Amino acid sequence: MADRDEDTILRERAADESRDAYALDDTLRAQLKAMVAARDVAAIDALMEPLHAADIADLLEQVSEGERAAWLALWSKGIDGEVLSELDWGLREEVIDLLPDQVLADAVRELDSDDVVDLVEDLEEAQIEAILEALEPADRVAVEQALAWPEESAGRLMQREVVHALEHWTVGQMIDHLRANTQGLPEQFYHVILTDPRLKPVGYVTLGRMLASARTTEMRAITEDSFRTIPATQHEDDVAYAFNQYHLISAPVVDGDGRLVGVITIDDAMIVLDERNEEDLLLLGGVNDESSLSDGVIETTRRRVPWLVVNLGTAALAALVIAQFEATISALVALAILMPIVASMGGNAGTQSLTVAVRAIATRDLTRANTWRFVLREAGVGVFNGLSLALPLALVTGLVFGSVGLGVVIGAALIINLFVAAVAGTLVPLALDRLNLDPALASGVFVTTVTDVIGFFAFLGLASLFLL
Amino acid sequence: MADRDEDTILRERAADESRDAYALDDTLRAQLKAMVAARDVAAIDALMEPLHAADIADLLEQVSEGERAAWLALWSKGIDGEVLSELDWGLREEVIDLLPDQVLADAVRELDSDDVVDLVEDLEEAQIEAILEALEPADRVAVEQALAWPEESAGRLMQREVVHALEHWTVGQMIDHLRANTQGLPEQFYHVILTDPRLKPVGYVTLGRMLASARTTEMRAITEDSFRTIPATQHEDDVAYAFNQYHLISAPVVDGDGRLVGVITIDDAMIVLDERNEEDLLLLGGVNDESSLSDGVIETTRRRVPWLVVNLGTAALAALVIAQFEATISALVALAILMPIVASMGGNAGTQSLTVAVRAIATRDLTRANTWRFVLREAGVGVFNGLSLALPLALVTGLVFGSVGLGVVIGAALIINLFVAAVAGTLVPLALDRLNLDPALASGVFVTTVTDVIGFFAFLGLASLFLL
Repeated sequence: MADRDEDTILRERAADESRDAYALDDTLRAQLKAMVAARDVAAIDALMEPLHAADIADLLEQVSEGERAAWLALWSKGIDGEVLSELDWGLREEVIDLLPDQVLADAVRELDSDDVVDLVEDLEEAQIEAILEALEPADRVAVEQALAWPEESAGRLMQREVVHALEHWTVGQMIDHLRANTQGLPEQFYHVILTDPRLKPVGYVTLGRMLASARTTEMRAITEDSFRTIPATQHEDDVAYAFNQYHLISAPVVDGDGRLVGVITIDDAMIVLDERNEEDLLLLGGVNDESSLSDGVIETTRRRVPWLVVNLGTAALAALVIAQFEATISALVALAILMPIVASMGGNAGTQSLTVAVRAIATRDLTRANTWRFVLREAGVGVFNGLSLALPLALVTGLVFGSVGLGVVIGAALIINLFVAAVAGTLVPLALDRLNLDPALASGVFVTTVTDVIGFFAFLGLASLFLL
Repeated sequence: MADRDEDTILRERAADESRDAYALDDTLRAQLKAMVAARDVAAIDALMEPLHAADIADLLEQVSEGERAAWLALWSKGIDGEVLSELDWGLREEVIDLLPDQVLADAVRELDSDDVVDLVEDLEEAQIEAILEALEPADRVAVEQALAWPEESAGRLMQREVVHALEHWTVGQMIDHLRANTQGLPEQFYHVILTDPRLKPVGYVTLGRMLASARTTEMRAITEDSFRTIPATQHEDDVAYAFNQYHLISAPVVDGDGRLVGVITIDDAMIVLDERNEEDLLLLGGVNDESSLSDGVIETTRRRVPWLVVNLGTAALAALVIAQFEATISALVALAILMPIVASMGGNAGTQSLTVAVRAIATRDLTRANTWRFVLREAGVGVFNGLSLALPLALVTGLVFGSVGLGVVIGAALIINLFVAAVAGTLVPLALDRLNLDPALASGVFVTTVTDVIGFFAFLGLASLFLL
């Protein structure tokens, strides 16, 4: 806490620096707009030249739809495969439709096979066909083979360009082999995978270790201690987990017979991790993850409204509970004033438990081994929270409304609802996970429905029993 | 959607596989428990031997506090530096206190300087002193120098072990240099950084490119196109952003004079990204991010209760709004039944906008350039959502309560509240960001306070104007 100030200062300074270093500033966008208006292609070329593909993609996402079309009509040749790869899913289709066939063909031809797969797998049939036809026959076969693996599998994620060696090779032989085959090398690689003669991976050697070893050293003498292969059918979430947990940089992928068929690198795994984090965050907020910042009002409404409809149904359920106590409320209007407090506290406490549970399931810190300890802890927290907050709430309520009974009733209802909130907040995501559904999916709606219903029922029910 | 079934099957299959491949199964924990009870150190050794440090750390996190102490009392020698590095912050202090001095000293001596810094920076003074004293003098100086950089800066994140070369060197010279200096090399490295004679980085060469080039090739002839240096004072969030945005594997860090002082690798950046994602998710759920799954009931309650107290205050504010309409509710109890619907819908819609805004700010997709377009879109979505849901809600309400007026009032209140929800959901996090605060911090409380207050006020206010 003593370092808070220093931390804040650093954060501000860093924010300023990063505005120069990484953020796309408004000037750039204004310049682009002027150049597009003036149809000055050479100037646009010069403006884009120093930018990374990821930044050009961001710029495409940040301008309006009209600006995008005008820009691409002038400057489609600048859109290479990497820019397409960096684009948001939502925008890829739109941008690909705007590109002339020849530009699109040139763009995809430069990409590694895994990037082409990533690019095409969510497009429409006609667009996929157009892209596949643009590829060299060998590349086309590679992409089609990758697409034969199930969606979201390691087979879709991997690149087929692999640097491997037989285990009895020496460092010198391997270096000579690399120098003789520069054309076939992947753009980035960090390890040489050693295989037996039947192409089964048996270990791997880091390039750093190879470079620091004598030419006569046998490759198998300098393999890394830990070595993991990934089945091509493994789900990409598990692949991403393994990369994160074991700090992998690249890992060989094997088919059902254990033979080397590709390699997955850290950048692929990071994209999956990022998507999964985004999905969990948005789902907990009641937003379907497919939405994109560049979607329009209608598209966004269409995506958001289903959750609101569900919430309308659950809110009606809560209203139905209140309706049962119409006579009680008529007799004591203070209940109507106070009842949202009990429900809202339950909703908040339930969301706390829920959020911690969803995160712990995602990071696999919450396992069968510690599930019950976690549920008990949360239930205990619910009770303690209830006890510590019920007293002040009961006191203030009793004083303001001049009724000891009302204070006792609201305090008791709060304790009940915070306990129920903690239990629902943990059991709902755990149950969804056991059903092999995403624990973040609809959890929030379930949990707040429970806390609303129980909150109103406990408060109004206790009131009608003891106050009337 | 046609692939849903296939996807579900794959997910299930992958879940089963991963239970074998990555998850720590209950058997392991049961075996460990039995071995600890039997004080069978050799068996524990054999059980732990094949496990990755990250898995041992997870196991330490998943057992109860008592089991942990009994286990470490028998088997502390197995806790090496890597296991300590992988432990949750919350547990590090506890585990370090349980370790004999000599074990701790041996454990930290194997680590790279950046890992020691990461290990010690959140410990208490006495523990830091104990660890620093265990280090060789040279390593101690390196760690102390790193600790001199501000918290959460690139200087804290980097390792000081750097592989660099003068730009005019040939590949052959560099390989000979590496072979002659194997002792000083970092455990993992992916690039050679080229510097001028004053140690200013001028480019970098991937090891793959080096290996595939002839010995006579000049290093400067095979540098990568894109090259970024990171100032040592840059905030770690910006560092992580750059790694993610530009798919970096490693990047040189420079001091104020532009001289090379260290290198940051992807694993460091991934840890920061992961922490930031976790922080955003938990903050949006109203949980402070320092909490850990291994915290007990009291500790967890202590961390959770502040947000609930804030929520109690804001709920009281909402109750105050309702209290203004006591007479109206007395005259028409149906209002008490229906009012939570308007508030809850607003809360949900506000959370949707908020979640999208927080995520977009974190990924820097929401910038000054497109802020107003985003706010307008969300406001438009709020209006459309309101219009599309108000009609069915008004109809059903009118029918159930036999009052056209009540239907019109609830419909109008819903439209107002969903519009306000969308605007508050976007403006609150944007405002926090401009104030250099975390946009996820307390956003949820602010937004639901606004939607509760406006929801109750609009519904009850319209009702008292038009229905009484």
